[in-house]
Amino acid sequence: MDYQKILFDIYSELKGTDNKGKVASYIPELANINADKFGIHLLTIDGGSYGIGDFNERFSIQSIAKVFSLSLAYKIYDKKLWGRVGVEPSGNPFNSLVQLEYESGVPRNPFINSGALVICDILTDTLKNPKIDVLNFIRKLAGNESINFNYKVAESEKKSGYRNAALINLMKSYGNIKNDVDEVLDFYYHLCSVEMSCNELSQSFMFFANEGVHKNEKILNGSQTKRMNALMQTCGFYDEAGEFSFKVGLPGKSGVGGGIAAVHPGKYTVVSWSPKLNRKGNSYLGMKALEVLTTKTKLSIF
Amino acid sequence: MDYQKILFDIYSELKGTDNKGKVASYIPELANINADKFGIHLLTIDGGSYGIGDFNERFSIQSIAKVFSLSLAYKIYDKKLWGRVGVEPSGNPFNSLVQLEYESGVPRNPFINSGALVICDILTDTLKNPKIDVLNFIRKLAGNESINFNYKVAESEKKSGYRNAALINLMKSYGNIKNDVDEVLDFYYHLCSVEMSCNELSQSFMFFANEGVHKNEKILNGSQTKRMNALMQTCGFYDEAGEFSFKVGLPGKSGVGGGIAAVHPGKYTVVSWSPKLNRKGNSYLGMKALEVLTTKTKLSIF
Amino acid sequence: MDYQKILFDIYSELKGTDNKGKVASYIPELANINADKFGIHLLTIDGGSYGIGDFNERFSIQSIAKVFSLSLAYKIYDKKLWGRVGVEPSGNPFNSLVQLEYESGVPRNPFINSGALVICDILTDTLKNPKIDVLNFIRKLAGNESINFNYKVAESEKKSGYRNAALINLMKSYGNIKNDVDEVLDFYYHLCSVEMSCNELSQSFMFFANEGVHKNEKILNGSQTKRMNALMQTCGFYDEAGEFSFKVGLPGKSGVGGGIAAVHPGKYTVVSWSPKLNRKGNSYLGMKALEVLTTKTKLSIF
Amino acid sequence: MDYQKILFDIYSELKGTDNKGKVASYIPELANINADKFGIHLLTIDGGSYGIGDFNERFSIQSIAKVFSLSLAYKIYDKKLWGRVGVEPSGNPFNSLVQLEYESGVPRNPFINSGALVICDILTDTLKNPKIDVLNFIRKLAGNESINFNYKVAESEKKSGYRNAALINLMKSYGNIKNDVDEVLDFYYHLCSVEMSCNELSQSFMFFANEGVHKNEKILNGSQTKRMNALMQTCGFYDEAGEFSFKVGLPGKSGVGGGIAAVHPGKYTVVSWSPKLNRKGNSYLGMKALEVLTTKTKLSIF
Repeated sequence: MDYQKILFDIYSELKGTDNKGKVASYIPELANINADKFGIHLLTIDGGSYGIGDFNERFSIQSIAKVFSLSLAYKIYDKKLWGRVGVEPSGNPFNSLVQLEYESGVPRNPFINSGALVICDILTDTLKNPKIDVLNFIRKLAGNESINFNYKVAESEKKSGYRNAALINLMKSYGNIKNDVDEVLDFYYHLCSVEMSCNELSQSFMFFANEGVHKNEKILNGSQTKRMNALMQTCGFYDEAGEFSFKVGLPGKSGVGGGIAAVHPGKYTVVSWSPKLNRKGNSYLGMKALEVLTTKTKLSIF
Repeated sequence: MDYQKILFDIYSELKGTDNKGKVASYIPELANINADKFGIHLLTIDGGSYGIGDFNERFSIQSIAKVFSLSLAYKIYDKKLWGRVGVEPSGNPFNSLVQLEYESGVPRNPFINSGALVICDILTDTLKNPKIDVLNFIRKLAGNESINFNYKVAESEKKSGYRNAALINLMKSYGNIKNDVDEVLDFYYHLCSVEMSCNELSQSFMFFANEGVHKNEKILNGSQTKRMNALMQTCGFYDEAGEFSFKVGLPGKSGVGGGIAAVHPGKYTVVSWSPKLNRKGNSYLGMKALEVLTTKTKLSIF
Repeated sequence: MDYQKILFDIYSELKGTDNKGKVASYIPELANINADKFGIHLLTIDGGSYGIGDFNERFSIQSIAKVFSLSLAYKIYDKKLWGRVGVEPSGNPFNSLVQLEYESGVPRNPFINSGALVICDILTDTLKNPKIDVLNFIRKLAGNESINFNYKVAESEKKSGYRNAALINLMKSYGNIKNDVDEVLDFYYHLCSVEMSCNELSQSFMFFANEGVHKNEKILNGSQTKRMNALMQTCGFYDEAGEFSFKVGLPGKSGVGGGIAAVHPGKYTVVSWSPKLNRKGNSYLGMKALEVLTTKTKLSIF
Repeated sequence: MDYQKILFDIYSELKGTDNKGKVASYIPELANINADKFGIHLLTIDGGSYGIGDFNERFSIQSIAKVFSLSLAYKIYDKKLWGRVGVEPSGNPFNSLVQLEYESGVPRNPFINSGALVICDILTDTLKNPKIDVLNFIRKLAGNESINFNYKVAESEKKSGYRNAALINLMKSYGNIKNDVDEVLDFYYHLCSVEMSCNELSQSFMFFANEGVHKNEKILNGSQTKRMNALMQTCGFYDEAGEFSFKVGLPGKSGVGGGIAAVHPGKYTVVSWSPKLNRKGNSYLGMKALEVLTTKTKLSIF
């Protein structure tokens, strides 16, 4: 498979199209991004590395970070996690309080905001220094020590994050948050502010394609790895998980910074970045790029 | 892979366990089933056929039939279908009216009751004799002309189906049902009453594992087939699609008759039957059987 | 109090204003009404009768009829009614299914559609000929034997009443409807189709102002009468009961035909009619007329 | 009317009954109250003062305080208030987030927690020292300078008030809270912690029975006073406003401290106190006491 040519074709085909998405504006610091950025990086399980466009430029990974915090929590707690957060798609926007209230403070899955906050709460119980420990976990997976938080973005989100404050206080009222809400929110906002390139993200997602193994180290066991992939498949794209599964057919996770990281187990990881988002909060061009990829390769998990 | 031994092991392991499920009682005719029935049949893409237990006995396939009606409608209308029914998981019980009201009569996906009713309405527009035409489609896929409706079950469901009548009338009030509600309901209840064995179901699902091809005939094209599999993955198990994806990792569809049909694209189809259902309406033993299967084979789509 | 002058002033003041309402269009037969009709009739407890505009012309009373069917059912069953229907405002549109589903088929109150259908179901159990018996009850209260159903309107509603069919089927699925759904719907649509004038309605509501007494006959006892008034106060105007209570301050009931009947206990009844409805389904001019009335008289129940 | 005898009869009748209510436990400081306390005080518009039981003992007025803050805000802003909070009953528990989310952060009415928080936010904009100013307003109405906050109760509520924090953050995310959330919450909790006796409350509610006049001072004008009474009628008892209206037939407001203050416009105010609450959060004995009162006097606003 000539992946470099495929990426080139996708890039050429989409670069000129009318991008109907809009840059996320609710986090002031993110609104300043150059909206025309566009990059893709694909990494095969045997080490083939293919990039096009702005694939080496770092961007705010936002919700993609939830995959790393969950992996770390899953590694530590295994099945015990699932008493405090579900594994079902939400059928609702990513930050809805309605479902959380009807279901007594137990989030539907760890990738909606409420679920990711519960994971942050759980890690706060365990890790000595949650922020640094998760950052180091990400640095190891990506193989780059210079990856860091963007403190301005974290601060900017904290200042405008009233809905997340509502979510975590609601869960606290149901007893599903153990630590101080401000401490957990601080951890959460730093986590989301991490900046990585498509290239670095495809490295750090490789263990999901490789039965849980990162450079001879078992990050998750085989069953856990499959389950992480299943979760990304059914819950990784907010209220558009079905659409992504339907059109792209790969497990993955998106972020409002415009990144999408996806996994073809046993074959490759692929990461796209384009800041303009569709109505459901996923990268407009990124969704299309990955759809064209699995159409051109005629390969998906289905 | 010695599938016969694996089926034998699964059967032996589960046959004696405490089955905490309950036979569906809301359809009086279905409540009379022998609750201890248990069978599995696995069919590989190269024709290997493996069965254990009651795999040759016919049962009421119920919602599994929705896969056949959708396939037929998809074959005829292709993308035009998706204006009237979505492809997102519902995050709600299979027969909830709440979401349908908030989303103005457009069902979330074609596998919840409301969505399946829309598909029946669409087929009623096109097919000369919808009931017979769908039945013949199923007979062809299964290779058995004796497959038939159970008229008593269809009648029994119609008499107690007030919630489905509520769903279809609500959609009609939004203009998303074109035909007479009683005619569409009659079609729907007959469809759900079809009786097949695990063996026959695994035959009739084989084209999903085989890029859309049934005995040299293209039932669906490659892209459509992948998308049907994706839909089964994200929406095939009511409000337990995430759980099934998480634990089993295969696209599939369940029915309240206790059947579960699943697909490993490129490899096999597998169908289990055990009438007792868990709290979410899926076969208690069937869910476990398929979980053990993908654990033992260490193979899933993830 | 010179009621005739007050009515004249209200009429003069409002007749020329810009009526921003819209005639109900969902029942085809009702859409043909002359939208400029406007009448008011006020009847004092000591027999003073005051009218202005089209107060002697009959119109479709629609939901105002629910007050009559409820009175009859309350007379027969007294407290036993409240096991099958609540007495709380709904906080939702008049025909919402959401609340009905969350509250397992028990309507919030007898004035939303679902609640009125339950009352029709209850009367179907008891009365020999529900349609005729309720009609005769209304004729007696209004003192006019020529009051009748409009069969065309009843038929028109039945043909387009898919949402009501959804409501009643949903309640039937919860066991809160005992009779055949079509029979109850037929009763309900006829009830709503009754045609009366402002004058006749003010006569027939007089017993609510008069401790339950109609021409020396006790229709309801004192406690029941107060409770009917309380119900009209909190639930008589769909999702605008608070607004009406706030601005007008009288118990009352509206209908989509543009009528509003209100009661000042111990003082008078007043009925307005103007077909154009506001966004919440209540008569635009009627709401204003009654607000001006209680402002000018400086009298309300508060 | 011999009110003293009536109060005596009510007290005797109810004192011995099986009180099925439960003291509110979610605010730790409130849980310590003697659950058997029971008092009633009735004050007629012409100065007749009648008390029985513990009517001179102060208790935590909790949500009854919302009537005072709203009166003050209404006095200052008049109609401008209603752009930020509605006047409709909620049809939901007092602290539900669901409706608030569907209605984009605008609370249904000023007596549910979210609405009361908006009123506190509005007063924070205007008053120099909101806490002291409202306290002085209450002291004036009650004619007693020793009325005060209970700082322990305020602190106790703040520490356990995660759901209120969720509500106010959600509204802040919709732009319907202008001030710092912690400042508004602090004001709100102090307000709810005010302690008054039945006697003092009946004094301070008297202007609602007296066309807005307190000792020759116009607190609210006639129209505003009627509207406050209308609001208490439709929204004063959480999700039991209909029930109270139905059984008691007076405007009023309850608090989780077990108090209920009610108004018969032009006649009297009456306040009961008994700490055990029914399932809906209103005083079990208080609801009954006022029902017996309007039954015995045969007088209500209906």
